[in-house]
Amino acid sequence: MNFFFNPDGVAVVGATPNPLKGGYSIFKNLVIGYKGNIYPVNPSYKEIEGIPCYPSVSAIPGHVDLAIVFVPAKLVPATIEDCAAKGVPGVMIESGGFAETGHDGGFLQQSLKDICKRTGIRLWGPNCMGLVDAVGGYVFSFMDPRSLQQELLIPGNVSLVVQSGLLSAGFLVDIMSHRVMGISKVCSIGNKIDVNECDLLSYLIQDTNTEVIGHYLESFSDGRRFTELCRKSTKPIVVLHGGKSRKGAEAAMSHTASLAGNHKIISGALAQAGVTEAGDFHQMMDLCRSLSARPRPAGRHGRIAVLTFSGGSGIVASDFIEEHGLTVAKLSRETKDALGRLFPDWMPVGNPVDLWPAIEKHGGTNVDVYSTALAAVLNDSCVDAVFLHAFAGNFQIGINVTDIADQTRTAGKPVFVWLLGRHEEAFRFKAEALSCGIPVFHEISRAVECLAAVFHRQRYSEIFKRLPEKEEIIRLPHKLSDVLEKAVGPLDEYVSKSILRLHGIPAVEEEIISDEAECKKIAKRLGFPLVMKGLQKGKVHKTELGLVHLNITTPEAALNAFDSLKKKMDPSGQVLAYRQVKGKIEIIVGLVRDVHFGPCVMLGLGGIMAEILSDAVFAPAPLTVEDALALIGRLRGQKIFDGFRGEPPVNREELAGILVALGDIGLQYPRIHEIDVNPLIVGEKGAMVAVDATIVLR
Amino acid sequence: MNFFFNPDGVAVVGATPNPLKGGYSIFKNLVIGYKGNIYPVNPSYKEIEGIPCYPSVSAIPGHVDLAIVFVPAKLVPATIEDCAAKGVPGVMIESGGFAETGHDGGFLQQSLKDICKRTGIRLWGPNCMGLVDAVGGYVFSFMDPRSLQQELLIPGNVSLVVQSGLLSAGFLVDIMSHRVMGISKVCSIGNKIDVNECDLLSYLIQDTNTEVIGHYLESFSDGRRFTELCRKSTKPIVVLHGGKSRKGAEAAMSHTASLAGNHKIISGALAQAGVTEAGDFHQMMDLCRSLSARPRPAGRHGRIAVLTFSGGSGIVASDFIEEHGLTVAKLSRETKDALGRLFPDWMPVGNPVDLWPAIEKHGGTNVDVYSTALAAVLNDSCVDAVFLHAFAGNFQIGINVTDIADQTRTAGKPVFVWLLGRHEEAFRFKAEALSCGIPVFHEISRAVECLAAVFHRQRYSEIFKRLPEKEEIIRLPHKLSDVLEKAVGPLDEYVSKSILRLHGIPAVEEEIISDEAECKKIAKRLGFPLVMKGLQKGKVHKTELGLVHLNITTPEAALNAFDSLKKKMDPSGQVLAYRQVKGKIEIIVGLVRDVHFGPCVMLGLGGIMAEILSDAVFAPAPLTVEDALALIGRLRGQKIFDGFRGEPPVNREELAGILVALGDIGLQYPRIHEIDVNPLIVGEKGAMVAVDATIVLR
Repeated sequence: MNFFFNPDGVAVVGATPNPLKGGYSIFKNLVIGYKGNIYPVNPSYKEIEGIPCYPSVSAIPGHVDLAIVFVPAKLVPATIEDCAAKGVPGVMIESGGFAETGHDGGFLQQSLKDICKRTGIRLWGPNCMGLVDAVGGYVFSFMDPRSLQQELLIPGNVSLVVQSGLLSAGFLVDIMSHRVMGISKVCSIGNKIDVNECDLLSYLIQDTNTEVIGHYLESFSDGRRFTELCRKSTKPIVVLHGGKSRKGAEAAMSHTASLAGNHKIISGALAQAGVTEAGDFHQMMDLCRSLSARPRPAGRHGRIAVLTFSGGSGIVASDFIEEHGLTVAKLSRETKDALGRLFPDWMPVGNPVDLWPAIEKHGGTNVDVYSTALAAVLNDSCVDAVFLHAFAGNFQIGINVTDIADQTRTAGKPVFVWLLGRHEEAFRFKAEALSCGIPVFHEISRAVECLAAVFHRQRYSEIFKRLPEKEEIIRLPHKLSDVLEKAVGPLDEYVSKSILRLHGIPAVEEEIISDEAECKKIAKRLGFPLVMKGLQKGKVHKTELGLVHLNITTPEAALNAFDSLKKKMDPSGQVLAYRQVKGKIEIIVGLVRDVHFGPCVMLGLGGIMAEILSDAVFAPAPLTVEDALALIGRLRGQKIFDGFRGEPPVNREELAGILVALGDIGLQYPRIHEIDVNPLIVGEKGAMVAVDATIVLR
Repeated sequence: MNFFFNPDGVAVVGATPNPLKGGYSIFKNLVIGYKGNIYPVNPSYKEIEGIPCYPSVSAIPGHVDLAIVFVPAKLVPATIEDCAAKGVPGVMIESGGFAETGHDGGFLQQSLKDICKRTGIRLWGPNCMGLVDAVGGYVFSFMDPRSLQQELLIPGNVSLVVQSGLLSAGFLVDIMSHRVMGISKVCSIGNKIDVNECDLLSYLIQDTNTEVIGHYLESFSDGRRFTELCRKSTKPIVVLHGGKSRKGAEAAMSHTASLAGNHKIISGALAQAGVTEAGDFHQMMDLCRSLSARPRPAGRHGRIAVLTFSGGSGIVASDFIEEHGLTVAKLSRETKDALGRLFPDWMPVGNPVDLWPAIEKHGGTNVDVYSTALAAVLNDSCVDAVFLHAFAGNFQIGINVTDIADQTRTAGKPVFVWLLGRHEEAFRFKAEALSCGIPVFHEISRAVECLAAVFHRQRYSEIFKRLPEKEEIIRLPHKLSDVLEKAVGPLDEYVSKSILRLHGIPAVEEEIISDEAECKKIAKRLGFPLVMKGLQKGKVHKTELGLVHLNITTPEAALNAFDSLKKKMDPSGQVLAYRQVKGKIEIIVGLVRDVHFGPCVMLGLGGIMAEILSDAVFAPAPLTVEDALALIGRLRGQKIFDGFRGEPPVNREELAGILVALGDIGLQYPRIHEIDVNPLIVGEKGAMVAVDATIVLR
């Protein structure tokens, strides 16, 4: 992939001297920033701005690592053939007019895939804006050189992979010209027929100029590979998935011909891989720059000291700190004493630290109230990070940015700044803070959200270092493995539970009753009250068909149930019996096989409310026990496991073990399309048992 | 109150020529902006900047409507006495050092209250920043005249009432200098010992220069009066309540000595009064300026057309539009044809409308793509508002702001803009849009959230015009009215249900069984299965005490239950019986008497999940049926009422009737402190019936 990022020789196919055309912009951007050989290609010109122009790529005399193509779609296939003939390893196709435009374009796109497969040439795009490298100073894109002038390219350590031209053009201009952040590389990947987000992620994880990788994706080329890469990455990764809603997904289809997946599964997969999810564009950038800021917190606690010039913003900050699962730090006695010396006598010291009275007291003196207070809280071992409120444009509450930066580095604790101020002064403050690496925000909620993401990532990297191990292969009895190899569609609950039980998932003790003689015997052995069910191939909705008898309390009633069930089924039907389980909590667990993420474990709460609130979470297999515990923790109603209404708490480790096992089953048997354990009941003494279950084979 | 806003003669007590002091700033701000007579008061000076200075207020020769006081706290009471002696109607106390500083300050604050009560003088503050009137050009505040220079005061139609100095100083500088919005009046109310948010709201609702009123409040002086004013207001009202969380509330206590209420009740009261709730400061301003923008939508649908220069931002916008309960408009055939004529042939037309291919096609021509597309969608009767994505700083996608403003006015439909761009160009765009009244946003989610708030308010004002009528007074039998007058604490469930039943709340048919002879007769009449309970004063937890017998299916069992219950109670105990109700859905309804908002009706879902997710909503009585229906609609799990798992839907009107009745009971009997109907069961045929209930008297 390095020939895309550091090419030795670049051809521009479709270069032109007309400054209104994209072909000119690509050429001009290269002239401004690229130091190697540039070869414009266009049969109509002999030279462009003094640089020799060639009729074809194969006519170029020198070495070409990268061809950037910006010609009408129908000319692209021949151009790629020409590049392949020349031995060019990589082509960036920035032309549109492919799958995003309908049937004909789709056909054209397929022909590019064919060439790629046949020749081994790597294709980036089409329908994309290429690459911007602010550290290297390259712009391999048709974006207007006047919009993205060289002085705007602020180098930073965040790289982006984006399935949208916007983020690699207009958005960059916006965030860099507003001094929000600098960037390393931005890769616009368009229709991604060959080079996709996984290839680029893999490259950027190795890239020494990249510390955090942000993605805007409308579809996942290979969700499983993507999340596996994320999981192994020590660099924080942020993803904004566009097309979550039905309408959004429809829009995505017409945009870059994406197939948007089920967002709940995507969200679960990203969470399990330690990815920070964003919902909006600026939010994504804010998360990226926050995660790239140094120092990172030393521990995984998030005890925050708030230094403010306003009681009101301290209160609102506290509300958000609590909402995001961080803590308003309890300051130590020493810190309070140190702050107390700054304050007027009447002023009590608490956290948030309202500095205004101290600022008034020391107005006109050379006491730097902010700096002194910052030193005090950074020095407190009960404080993990500082949220500082600043105002730019008033001498009374002037803040020395480089001093903050020095202090934060020395203390090894992050300082995030909420900034208000006059337009020009605030701009200068942000520019200075950017150069010092201090993250500055304009909204309190956003700053706290980003701080929370930093601590969340810290906890993730401490807890989830261990990757899932290869699952243990369990050998099933021949009869069952035969079913798994040959059957199609849903298996009956007896067979399903037998398989699950052998894989370590506790299921009710149950038996098939063959005849009346056995009935009483088995009923007695299992114990009353009893449940009896008629199992018949193809009859899935047993309750509706009258094939379920509950609350059977006598041997006679069992016999009646047996006869009644037998009568309702054809001779192949079987009668199943188990002792009725009295449960306190009903859980649903299962497995779905997602087209993007493969086998995914599902966890939900049973009962009417859970269904109404659609409280279900997903995670791709395999899961470690820690993953499974985290999955349980993502359930909105998970408090129910903590011992509700005087009940003993549910054993989370045991539930986690069941979730791990379900994932392993999904990996071991690719023919299993779906598993539905509903309900998994937590009984009186806390024991978990699968009462009903269905395995669906494809 | 007009003497605070348009005073004839202003005294500045604590005026000084030292430019580092607040007393100078107040004086200087008046000199810059106030046109009436200014009277500095300070015994140490004969004149300040050429204006005669007086030793006391009573020494001032001319008429004084308003005294602004900025002297040390301990001197304030004498100053107020002096003002009262002079006959000054209003005093704005900007000094701090009162209840916010602890016990001594609280004592001092009480003395001000006493003077106020005795003399009738109106007091604003203390511990506040006073008043800014950007339309009148007045600054009655110690904020630095250099920070808030006259050219920064952009007149607008949003007024603010804020319990924090920040919002009236730094924040104003920020939003106005960034060309986010203009303002009308900003009132900083501090400790609000006399003039409070209700007084100011009442004034601002009448104020011709105010269209929208925003509040930052840490406490409510009189929640009930506040929400009643909001409800009657035709002007939209926005509230940010600081101190929602436990930690936030603690911080609020030390800030302006507030008592933060239960946020769930506050939130319910605000929603019922049609108030838009904000969570953060910029969000509050964004909501205010959105609600003040013209034109307001003509209808209450929110079908949005998205015009964008980027597929990606169109997709993300669609996601947020769906999330916020708005609709991505389905464009009419005519609109699609009109847009199709702008587009290249290959480009399909949908909504979001991705204009980029059209912009490329018409590059260099005089076709104004944005303007033409905007005209097309504004003309579509299936479009209620337009969300337009703009970029400032690129000639290709230049947008004519005045043209947008003309079109939006002509069409009578709002246009909201999401803006990216280069720093300087974006600033100019915002300034121009501000002067044309077009709301501009920097984040997609925020723009959509504000658009949703506008449509929500529109729906509110159409549906909730009708105010609650005086509740019908119901006369109870003497025995029950006697209980309500004299009893204390919880009433037993039989009495409670009797009272509720007479007020129109359906309750189970039940009887007290006095002796064994009656037992069988009553049991038969009620029908099996039966529930029997022992009622004994002070024994609230009946189940735990073995005082509940369920599932009684025979007359003999009823007799056994009767004997067993009698044995467990002392002779005063009674036995209650009713037929067991088989229900599909359990609901909890009730009433609480809140210290800020008076009697509030509560609605929650019964069962374990609801409690885990603490899904409960509140609304202050009285409720109209529409209020009650809206309250039901605010329950997160309200989908359950729509006919779940093949069940018939719950009759929302009937449930609404019960909620209205509960509110009326709360209003009619001030001694009722709490009502808990748990459960209210929706039976097999949809009938609702209160199965257990407790009325608690204070």
